[in-house]
Amino acid sequence: MQNGMQRQLEIFRKGLLGQRESFPLSPEALEEAARAVLPPEAYDYVAGGAGSESTMRANVGAFERYRLVPRMLRNVSERDLSIELLGHRYPAPVFIGPVGVQKILHSEGELAIAQAAATLGIPFMLSTVSSYPIEQVAQVAGDAPRWFQLYWSRDPNVAASFVRRAEAAGYQAIVITVDTCLLAWRDRDLSHAYLPFMQGEGLANYFTDPAFRAALAQPPEQDPGTAIMHFAQIFGNPALTWDDLGFIRQHTRLPILLKGILHPDDAREAVRRGVDGIIVSNHGGRQVDGAIAALDALPKVVEAVEGRIPVLFDGGIRRAADVLKALALGAKAVLLARPVMWALAIGGAEGVQTYLRNFLAELDLSLGLLGCRSVAEVNRQMLAD
Amino acid sequence: MQNGMQRQLEIFRKGLLGQRESFPLSPEALEEAARAVLPPEAYDYVAGGAGSESTMRANVGAFERYRLVPRMLRNVSERDLSIELLGHRYPAPVFIGPVGVQKILHSEGELAIAQAAATLGIPFMLSTVSSYPIEQVAQVAGDAPRWFQLYWSRDPNVAASFVRRAEAAGYQAIVITVDTCLLAWRDRDLSHAYLPFMQGEGLANYFTDPAFRAALAQPPEQDPGTAIMHFAQIFGNPALTWDDLGFIRQHTRLPILLKGILHPDDAREAVRRGVDGIIVSNHGGRQVDGAIAALDALPKVVEAVEGRIPVLFDGGIRRAADVLKALALGAKAVLLARPVMWALAIGGAEGVQTYLRNFLAELDLSLGLLGCRSVAEVNRQMLAD
Amino acid sequence: MQNGMQRQLEIFRKGLLGQRESFPLSPEALEEAARAVLPPEAYDYVAGGAGSESTMRANVGAFERYRLVPRMLRNVSERDLSIELLGHRYPAPVFIGPVGVQKILHSEGELAIAQAAATLGIPFMLSTVSSYPIEQVAQVAGDAPRWFQLYWSRDPNVAASFVRRAEAAGYQAIVITVDTCLLAWRDRDLSHAYLPFMQGEGLANYFTDPAFRAALAQPPEQDPGTAIMHFAQIFGNPALTWDDLGFIRQHTRLPILLKGILHPDDAREAVRRGVDGIIVSNHGGRQVDGAIAALDALPKVVEAVEGRIPVLFDGGIRRAADVLKALALGAKAVLLARPVMWALAIGGAEGVQTYLRNFLAELDLSLGLLGCRSVAEVNRQMLAD
Amino acid sequence: MQNGMQRQLEIFRKGLLGQRESFPLSPEALEEAARAVLPPEAYDYVAGGAGSESTMRANVGAFERYRLVPRMLRNVSERDLSIELLGHRYPAPVFIGPVGVQKILHSEGELAIAQAAATLGIPFMLSTVSSYPIEQVAQVAGDAPRWFQLYWSRDPNVAASFVRRAEAAGYQAIVITVDTCLLAWRDRDLSHAYLPFMQGEGLANYFTDPAFRAALAQPPEQDPGTAIMHFAQIFGNPALTWDDLGFIRQHTRLPILLKGILHPDDAREAVRRGVDGIIVSNHGGRQVDGAIAALDALPKVVEAVEGRIPVLFDGGIRRAADVLKALALGAKAVLLARPVMWALAIGGAEGVQTYLRNFLAELDLSLGLLGCRSVAEVNRQMLAD
Repeated sequence: MQNGMQRQLEIFRKGLLGQRESFPLSPEALEEAARAVLPPEAYDYVAGGAGSESTMRANVGAFERYRLVPRMLRNVSERDLSIELLGHRYPAPVFIGPVGVQKILHSEGELAIAQAAATLGIPFMLSTVSSYPIEQVAQVAGDAPRWFQLYWSRDPNVAASFVRRAEAAGYQAIVITVDTCLLAWRDRDLSHAYLPFMQGEGLANYFTDPAFRAALAQPPEQDPGTAIMHFAQIFGNPALTWDDLGFIRQHTRLPILLKGILHPDDAREAVRRGVDGIIVSNHGGRQVDGAIAALDALPKVVEAVEGRIPVLFDGGIRRAADVLKALALGAKAVLLARPVMWALAIGGAEGVQTYLRNFLAELDLSLGLLGCRSVAEVNRQMLAD
Repeated sequence: MQNGMQRQLEIFRKGLLGQRESFPLSPEALEEAARAVLPPEAYDYVAGGAGSESTMRANVGAFERYRLVPRMLRNVSERDLSIELLGHRYPAPVFIGPVGVQKILHSEGELAIAQAAATLGIPFMLSTVSSYPIEQVAQVAGDAPRWFQLYWSRDPNVAASFVRRAEAAGYQAIVITVDTCLLAWRDRDLSHAYLPFMQGEGLANYFTDPAFRAALAQPPEQDPGTAIMHFAQIFGNPALTWDDLGFIRQHTRLPILLKGILHPDDAREAVRRGVDGIIVSNHGGRQVDGAIAALDALPKVVEAVEGRIPVLFDGGIRRAADVLKALALGAKAVLLARPVMWALAIGGAEGVQTYLRNFLAELDLSLGLLGCRSVAEVNRQMLAD
Repeated sequence: MQNGMQRQLEIFRKGLLGQRESFPLSPEALEEAARAVLPPEAYDYVAGGAGSESTMRANVGAFERYRLVPRMLRNVSERDLSIELLGHRYPAPVFIGPVGVQKILHSEGELAIAQAAATLGIPFMLSTVSSYPIEQVAQVAGDAPRWFQLYWSRDPNVAASFVRRAEAAGYQAIVITVDTCLLAWRDRDLSHAYLPFMQGEGLANYFTDPAFRAALAQPPEQDPGTAIMHFAQIFGNPALTWDDLGFIRQHTRLPILLKGILHPDDAREAVRRGVDGIIVSNHGGRQVDGAIAALDALPKVVEAVEGRIPVLFDGGIRRAADVLKALALGAKAVLLARPVMWALAIGGAEGVQTYLRNFLAELDLSLGLLGCRSVAEVNRQMLAD
Repeated sequence: MQNGMQRQLEIFRKGLLGQRESFPLSPEALEEAARAVLPPEAYDYVAGGAGSESTMRANVGAFERYRLVPRMLRNVSERDLSIELLGHRYPAPVFIGPVGVQKILHSEGELAIAQAAATLGIPFMLSTVSSYPIEQVAQVAGDAPRWFQLYWSRDPNVAASFVRRAEAAGYQAIVITVDTCLLAWRDRDLSHAYLPFMQGEGLANYFTDPAFRAALAQPPEQDPGTAIMHFAQIFGNPALTWDDLGFIRQHTRLPILLKGILHPDDAREAVRRGVDGIIVSNHGGRQVDGAIAALDALPKVVEAVEGRIPVLFDGGIRRAADVLKALALGAKAVLLARPVMWALAIGGAEGVQTYLRNFLAELDLSLGLLGCRSVAEVNRQMLAD
């Protein structure tokens, strides 16, 4: 992986040859470029949030209130972004977060993400509602690190099957999303009357799943309408409780993380239940309108967990500085989602790779400028009170 | 009543047939649509507030400062929005608030509201200054729950008569508005020189009232001008004090609530005086310019009341999340007003019904996503400090 | 004076005849209308402030942070806005603040103000740099209450003469402005290269003053250029200290107030020095750029004064609600300045009278709606913490 | 140096002759005027910051939260802006901050700055990456005060040589910038692929430096490309630590200040290491995106230093009021940078001189209006809590 200076030099050198990078640098410009190439309903599906979208805005806005206080003269000539997490070493404290049905953004969807991630070694999380099946995405990813995100189906056989398939396909952890037992009220999708799953998009894992297929009279290929309706009925599981977590444990040896924890009491419960990690998240502001900004929830969750399990962070990361703030507040790593999707939309695998190279370059430089040589050196003392 | 998932499915299914919902989903779009169809003075009469309208804006803005912290894995497959209040069960903690002279918004005015409310079982509050008389509205409402809002006339006979008529017509409670002893200075109405009552609008209850008619030399039908002037003289009652409350008690067995309480000392006094309930409200920012946002007043009133009588909330509710925040701060139910009026303006009874179905669907989903199965489970621990 | 309801009725009745009030109701509309009729440099002279104008904006913005909490059911059928202050009774806690050189806004300038104020009995403060002399303004004012604002000249004879003239002409108090020992840096005036005094405007009191004339070789009528230059040299007095206050005392029996106090230590000093009153003011944001908003300074000054002398308030009052907030924070009365000037610009004496009638009507209604029958009942408990 | 009143009078007198000042007075207008005359990449190079530019905006915004509370009646007829600092007296607590490669703004670049500064006696700081060499700039400056800003090269001989040259050329202090061990990620420059140094701009000190030249096979005049590449390799020094500071001490008797300190722990370390002064700065928001606003960092650094060494302030100063706020928070002097650069762009040396005359005039008046006769009288009690 290039360090930040190398990437800067590459860009400036091109400038000497009269070549400007055309890839958008700011997250705002990136989103704008994606919006220009996407059908409105696809753009809105990814860009939008629940209700008034107040939480979505709060996620991004919260970062402004936390300010870094850098240290000087600390010899940062060598910087190491890598982290150790749940038995694996990753090159940076950055994951590509799980986003469903990426085909609506780019024809190669999750395959492009896997390919770009693999090139850089950055781990990605594959959504349950992927456009391509678990195994096909794994094949593209090769040896590269990958996690699997689980929407726990109302049909326990399907849930168990997904987890087994993920483990078999080399995914390194199971991320159970717990904040989507119901689908939130989202104005944008409702006003477009657009839910891609209703058109069979994002159901690759289901249609290829033996347990799912076993519950159907006819295979999805022959009667997609019925298969879709069956999916709609078993997709979420609002009846889920803490007691159910043991069931998944029985079907995998992979570490299990819960994504969507915001309340410190839930974090404590997760520790008590033997969960392997927590991802603080409000689903990008897409589920509980009016919910606390993810960053504001982070410190109390970290405090509640008392260091017993790793806490990851998801929600509103747009810049390298945001990563550093989340780390300073106790996150072990962060998830990047919407910006990666915009990069996918405008440039496929290559777009994602360019985006990530820039993001990691900025992160490398920012870490050094903060006065740190490693992620472990970023701590609470580097934030203003 | 549909639950939220059923309503979502209905909308998305239409999408499969290429049909988008044309009814505006966001409150902003709803208001914009209403504005487009209304005469400016009618729009402004409902949309406007007192003085600088600072309180009106503060009402809505206050919700941003209170953030929900949802709980996970709590089995929310069955959700119950219903509440028990003053001896009745209502299907949701949501009332249609009292708004006067609805004919300026739609020719069917209060009748349309009553019809839509009855279809869904949602209780409504009929304003004293209704376009249609108490009894006619009751007839449309049938068995559906309804409350009566009283502007206490300077003529005690009229006030007493209104209350008796409401009780006779099946209204379940009397809501005495205490914040309108004088009419506030409202730039919009003054600059239009528009007060619908001066043209005889909104006086249906007066013109049909025996006590009111008894005070006139000629019936209103024959000399509307004099009747209107008499109305103007007896409409409000700035001399009202706590001691006067006993008078209304003598004329009805219905529970009596005070609408417009903001100061905790007034809340305590209300309890001492045996009032049956309080509605925290600043009249939608239409009375005291510069007043505290209703939501900011709520916690202290709830604290002052010490659970002895129910506290309802009115002021700035635009989204399901706002309802949950008010409930978390101690309100037993909330009043929805302006958005319902915009729905009335653009679609009459059907518009109101569509609006309410969407609102209740969002509320049902939001309750579940917050981790609650019932309204009673929403509490202060679900708000960030 | 009309009460608020009478004024409302007057406006709405006109509406029945198809007549709308053309006079702007909101302070923003009023300013806009004035801007449209004024030369840019005259508008900017009044509208502008020092430096970045941050203090000017802060003055107005500060009111948003203080919120009224009204009381209900208190019999407010009779409301009395009058106040007792320094031995006089005034009809409302509102003064027209001192603004210089009003001829640039309207040919009748201070005479129009005096006439409008006299009609309503509202006291006004005449600026030292008036367009018309002390005596002529007094003549128009007749029996109406008036105060005189003093810029303490570097020539003590002139300062003493002004004070004696004011007392002789029936002014009831001397307001010494202490925040203008130097003229602040004001971008707008500097970019227009516009200071009306340099053209002889606003010097009526000087040119008619025996002490001023005595210091000139030729009377101003014959050599205005020299007179103006002499004015420029003696106008302000940056050498002034607390010890000098005794000098003015020797020349008048009128109460003396200091206008421009912001620091509680200065307020304490004023009490120690036997000053009769304080006006908390930052000169409308026209002197110290970056200064504290006047309203934010008020509570500490009131606290420092411990009730020994009256504290008046000046700075950012735009609405009746602002008056109530200032009163609740301990002010005995407030000064209204820029809005009155805009009213003068668009309508002369009649414009000012219409503006004041509206303002006082709003104040009367707002007082009652706050639950108060008199100014004395407005207190700190009516503001949210 | 004119005092503020003299400068005001000069401008207003021109007005009498019908001449308006055409030089922009507000910093916003100044920047706009500069933008209009500059190539976009040059404008962006100076105007831009790191990452989201959040720190850059925070620098300016922070001043709004600190409010001055002026004192009255203190005899401010004589005001003295001068300060004593590190053995020298300077006419005002204002330095022109170091900005590199000023030729991209105006052909005379640093020479123009030196000339304007010399005319007024205002000290300037020459950047290491100047468009003109240390000695040539000194020659223009003559006897005028000047400091030298050092980017500590990876080649110690070059760093030592720069310091020796500066001392020999009459610079009075060495300002070591410690926050630029790496170049931050800056969207604007990267999107323009514009780094002026890559085109040889700003390398005058290097190309004329014996130590730099000694490391090259061929002199820069003959092979500029190689020289530039060598510069790029040795420019920054991310390996620098506190222990290295002693090295510079060995090569100069000048006082040494560190520019870029934000964390109080670093300030304490600087004191321990015998540094002569600190400049609180975040490099104008150009290095650590998300960093604390410079003004917010100032009080804690001042507290940590306990008065043992002077603390200067850099970051967001746009107005005289900003200077007073920084002084009140404990800064001994402040640096002005971007606005001076805009003045340079639109008017060369004369533009800078006009800008500074206006700025100092505003500062003189503001000091007096705050109630202070000297910089030493500005203290923490003049800020609102």
